Amino acid sequence: MPKKTKPAKGLGPRRSDCPIAGTLDLVGDRWTLLIVRDLLFGRHRFSQFLTAGEGFTTNILADRLRRMERAGVIRRVRYQDRPPRDEYHLTERGRALGPILHAMARWGATQVEGTRGHVDPETRSS
Amino acid sequence: MPKKTKPAKGLGPRRSDCPIAGTLDLVGDRWTLLIVRDLLFGRHRFSQFLTAGEGFTTNILADRLRRMERAGVIRRVRYQDRPPRDEYHLTERGRALGPILHAMARWGATQVEGTRGHVDPETRSS
Repeated sequence: MPKKTKPAKGLGPRRSDCPIAGTLDLVGDRWTLLIVRDLLFGRHRFSQFLTAGEGFTTNILADRLRRMERAGVIRRVRYQDRPPRDEYHLTERGRALGPILHAMARWGATQVEGTRGHVDPETRSS
Repeated sequence: MPKKTKPAKGLGPRRSDCPIAGTLDLVGDRWTLLIVRDLLFGRHRFSQFLTAGEGFTTNILADRLRRMERAGVIRRVRYQDRPPRDEYHLTERGRALGPILHAMARWGATQVEGTRGHVDPETRSS
């Protein structure tokens, strides 16, 4: 089954035809990428994102989820009718963001002190 | 020679010890990542960033360069004294952001219509 491409609608108007700029325009917002991280880690519900420890406000979270759905990286799935409750899942396009998050995890672990997995190169035995 | 790690000072306070969040707090801003892209492409001067076609304002550009210098991803090098003019170069920590940009370029080229190198999967011959 071919992948679907949807028109680029995301965080703002596109500025150039550079694929890096295109990516940043759609998902280049740290809240958005934290939500992608949470989805990759198996969190799917609004309340789970709120409690993931990154200081989301409900307004930011609702806004980013709406933009991500428009950009085709997540889809909303109703799991309860009364009261209505939705959960969020990555689309194929959303799962394809995995390598970006993976590269960020590696950079953080090697370059940012105080992160899980960080080894200070100065104290690392060689 | 061991790599230097500097205290995490960047775009805002750190929220968790997740290395992805750590990365996003330091460089997870689309203007910042566009500047990293330009530096990787050999642009080093303020005027070159301004004319790269992404719609930087001088205020945003000056602010991000200052934060990036504080975060240890770029260093400023004076290349002219009268009038004083600086150019910017990636540090080792900054060059280590390459794989993140590379992953973004791949996602953009495959997932965002209208970017350079984009091939619509629906029309691609198999």
